[in-house]
Amino acid sequence: MFMPKIYKSEDLSLMKKIISENAFALLISNKEKLLATHSMFLLNEINDGFYLETHLSKANFQAKVLKDGDEVLCDFLGAHSYISSSWYEKTNVSTWNYEAVQIRGKVKLMNDDELYEHLKKLTFKYENAQKCPMFVEKMGDEFVRKEMKGAFGINIYPSEIFIANKLSQNRNDADFENIILNLGASNDENSIKIAEKMKSIR
Amino acid sequence: MFMPKIYKSEDLSLMKKIISENAFALLISNKEKLLATHSMFLLNEINDGFYLETHLSKANFQAKVLKDGDEVLCDFLGAHSYISSSWYEKTNVSTWNYEAVQIRGKVKLMNDDELYEHLKKLTFKYENAQKCPMFVEKMGDEFVRKEMKGAFGINIYPSEIFIANKLSQNRNDADFENIILNLGASNDENSIKIAEKMKSIR
Repeated sequence: MFMPKIYKSEDLSLMKKIISENAFALLISNKEKLLATHSMFLLNEINDGFYLETHLSKANFQAKVLKDGDEVLCDFLGAHSYISSSWYEKTNVSTWNYEAVQIRGKVKLMNDDELYEHLKKLTFKYENAQKCPMFVEKMGDEFVRKEMKGAFGINIYPSEIFIANKLSQNRNDADFENIILNLGASNDENSIKIAEKMKSIR
Repeated sequence: MFMPKIYKSEDLSLMKKIISENAFALLISNKEKLLATHSMFLLNEINDGFYLETHLSKANFQAKVLKDGDEVLCDFLGAHSYISSSWYEKTNVSTWNYEAVQIRGKVKLMNDDELYEHLKKLTFKYENAQKCPMFVEKMGDEFVRKEMKGAFGINIYPSEIFIANKLSQNRNDADFENIILNLGASNDENSIKIAEKMKSIR
């Protein structure tokens, strides 16, 4: 991911937040051909860093070709919004503000026990917020083991991390405040999020 | 993009809508290595179909390596939402509903005139909605030509189109209605959008 230095972040807590909040993300590979699947990711912290987990349907061609050691790129796009140059004092070009994470890494196929744990954690993350949570433990072992036969689980061990935090850091104070004002006046959830993020760095 | 038949669409007007509404999308390539850039896309209709337009910063490594004829994959993710299995009558697995488009295609580098027209159209699309639009024509030719020196414009001629419209079409009527009810009760813009899309196909 290209990112001028002014927008680059090295804040791993920001990275974890972007990944957790935008965990329905894109798994990209180039085995046989360029392939990309929208799938649900988890970040797993370990002693000396972290790895990502996700799973695909076994019927997905990407699952048929991915093997241990293959390189993949995972893309997590967070809040993003158009920034109109009409909000600037002087003539300039419009742009897009956004936060995003890209993780380049190597694939390691999950075994059955790892896949089970992955599905348990993933389900817990989203079901814990429901009125009547349907945790994996409640589904019955036979049902879960049957469903697992259709799933292809992988861990992704990062080799490169890109954290983009593009929030008009290149504008002067007047432009910066005017962008916040205009985004904040919008009805769009993403624009309001970007306005809040800009406020947090001013 | 893997998509069971039940969720696949061949509706080109739906494709155009998803691309237009989610035009800040991902340009993916594998020249030298896997690369992906979030950029602004336009769809250009022509007699026998369409092509996509986008531009990158010339400082972006992806812009340095992409040449005429290279294959790229463009990913447009629309509304998407977690679907809890706790909303189903019978035990089943949770999932994610979403709409998305992927276009596989071949790159053709823009010349200066094409890049100028691209920036003009792109700016018009977003500036036309502003209080005091800053159209390219108002920026002055000298300014625009100077800015263009930093931009790398490409057209993408499609070879494969994937339209995903995953809206719980596999559920029975009671589950389907209960999903709409639960999504509609959410404060999340994406969930509400998915509920509306589900209503439109019931």
